[in-house]
Amino acid sequence: MQRLTVAKQSLRPRVVFSGIQPTGVPHLGNYVGALRQWVNLQRDEQPSTKLIYSIVDLHAITVPQKPETLRQRKREVLAALLAIGLDPERCTIFYQSSVPAHSELMWILACTASVGYLSRMTQWKSKLSLASSSTLENKSVGSRLKLGLFSYPVLQAADILVHRTVADAFTPRATHVPVGHDQQQHLEFARECVTNFNHAYGNHLVHPETIVSPAQRIMSLTEPTSKMSKSHEAQRSRILITDSPQDIRSKIATALTDSIPGISYDPATRPGISNLLEIFSVFDTERRSPTQLARAYADASPKIFKEAVADALLTGLQGIRDRYLDLSANDSYLDKIEQHGARKAQESAKETMDIVKTAVGL
Amino acid sequence: MQRLTVAKQSLRPRVVFSGIQPTGVPHLGNYVGALRQWVNLQRDEQPSTKLIYSIVDLHAITVPQKPETLRQRKREVLAALLAIGLDPERCTIFYQSSVPAHSELMWILACTASVGYLSRMTQWKSKLSLASSSTLENKSVGSRLKLGLFSYPVLQAADILVHRTVADAFTPRATHVPVGHDQQQHLEFARECVTNFNHAYGNHLVHPETIVSPAQRIMSLTEPTSKMSKSHEAQRSRILITDSPQDIRSKIATALTDSIPGISYDPATRPGISNLLEIFSVFDTERRSPTQLARAYADASPKIFKEAVADALLTGLQGIRDRYLDLSANDSYLDKIEQHGARKAQESAKETMDIVKTAVGL
Repeated sequence: MQRLTVAKQSLRPRVVFSGIQPTGVPHLGNYVGALRQWVNLQRDEQPSTKLIYSIVDLHAITVPQKPETLRQRKREVLAALLAIGLDPERCTIFYQSSVPAHSELMWILACTASVGYLSRMTQWKSKLSLASSSTLENKSVGSRLKLGLFSYPVLQAADILVHRTVADAFTPRATHVPVGHDQQQHLEFARECVTNFNHAYGNHLVHPETIVSPAQRIMSLTEPTSKMSKSHEAQRSRILITDSPQDIRSKIATALTDSIPGISYDPATRPGISNLLEIFSVFDTERRSPTQLARAYADASPKIFKEAVADALLTGLQGIRDRYLDLSANDSYLDKIEQHGARKAQESAKETMDIVKTAVGL
Repeated sequence: MQRLTVAKQSLRPRVVFSGIQPTGVPHLGNYVGALRQWVNLQRDEQPSTKLIYSIVDLHAITVPQKPETLRQRKREVLAALLAIGLDPERCTIFYQSSVPAHSELMWILACTASVGYLSRMTQWKSKLSLASSSTLENKSVGSRLKLGLFSYPVLQAADILVHRTVADAFTPRATHVPVGHDQQQHLEFARECVTNFNHAYGNHLVHPETIVSPAQRIMSLTEPTSKMSKSHEAQRSRILITDSPQDIRSKIATALTDSIPGISYDPATRPGISNLLEIFSVFDTERRSPTQLARAYADASPKIFKEAVADALLTGLQGIRDRYLDLSANDSYLDKIEQHGARKAQESAKETMDIVKTAVGL
């Protein structure tokens, strides 16, 4: 009996879960920092590995949203995930709100999750622009803070655990949060949720692990010491993966660099040029590193260099943009794909929920 | 357009929701104080009124539970609800955890519910035996307090609102909580949830109302100044609705009364006798009030009087006990009844969830 269990455990296929916020069409930072790896996992992981990618709309509503905009952005992200090459047969792609088990497990985990631990976490403070020393005791904090935002890490833990994830891929919002700090804290909290649950009900949930991917940060084009971000007010600061060729050329051409002659790779003193070299390297068909590219373009003028960057980027993104435009014009196809993914995710979650409900006595 | 809406509103059938904790076989206090009214509603309400009764297992797990015991007690409550005469065709009877929409709506409401409001509520403090002045700031409070217990009122609001309840029947745990105080606070909070949600997303949720039933409190047989309670350590302090005739006779015979000669109704000075008169009145086939019964038995000895009380009680409960024993021996029938109720509840909740998800942009 014991041996069977162990065998079953070791034979259990890997599950990779990652979520993306429905903030609309991803920009280059999202793509390079996370989404490209999602696609690579299709190539690199065993066929038995479950790849589960969720558009986490239930997380999105922890801060105020315009319903029409949210609906629109969910579709944009879905179309973008397909456009970058995720295969809806190979992966499970779905809206979080289509799978009730995420909310169900969230509640069950909440019953063993400590309010004190949550109150020490930082994300709710940063989202409300509060000092990290802020406490729940402060009256204005208590009235501004909504329960959803406060308990967000529990839902995030449920997202991962409900699919019996043994590995949590990447930091889905790496470009939105200070250097993965919050995400690390959240994964740590998910492990705490597992410990609490298993302590109360037996060893049923699996401690999630992180797949660490080589963190590649794309910086803002107008302010290359900050990460490229959706929330930056200047449109020129970021390239959306569906930008038109003209827009891409123009944004690269006007990207902030420096007045040092020639091209060299030195992120500390030449952040603008170095950022362009990073982007170039990601899309370079010859797979040259930023340093190799700097050597190749050492004596080029900024104009020539930027044109070469834009060329590489356009080639790399071209298929994505075309596919995105096709997909986003086809609502009924997107609906069908999402429903297909939701069904697969429901099945995947049901297995866990049956185990959890039995363990809890529900 | 406006007139149609109004017409539709006024034509909307009434929905009555009430929940019962899965604490096992109900005692006389539960039955007289709440459950008997649930049965009466079948007789008194329009056929169009939806009567929704939930065994709230997701609430139960906000405090530690033994899984086997919880599972057992859910079945006991289900069997008891049927035994007292609830018709599973006329009513919707189900385990809360069978209907994911309760958890789903809970999360959505949580996103507009204020942590400050919740922190001022009293139930989490009383459940942890904390002073009502306790705050989240206290370190030992933060580590002992689990998120589930803290956010329990939001799930309770979801329970009511997910069925578009225009009326919330009774206080399901009236015998367990200080004179409905907590329940009133929770219903007030549910109204606050409606206000917050509707403010953010438009007028979609209905403010719940309370049906006030004449509160009839049955007191402990061993300590007639306290309510009859499941948590009292003395078994003799309460009568379960499935107690055997011998047990009932014996518990009534040894019920604490006083040494004043004769029988009279005076709850303040004669709590024991008055409690027995109340019980007698509830089950009296001639429907006499406690005062009328006191007059009829004015000169009776305690022994004769108690025998008369026990006779009335035995007649009143006899069918219930027999039906309970039949039902609780028939697991597969109970399963079928619950699944039937869960399906009906899922349909009822789906209507609301469709409206809510569209309003939120999910």
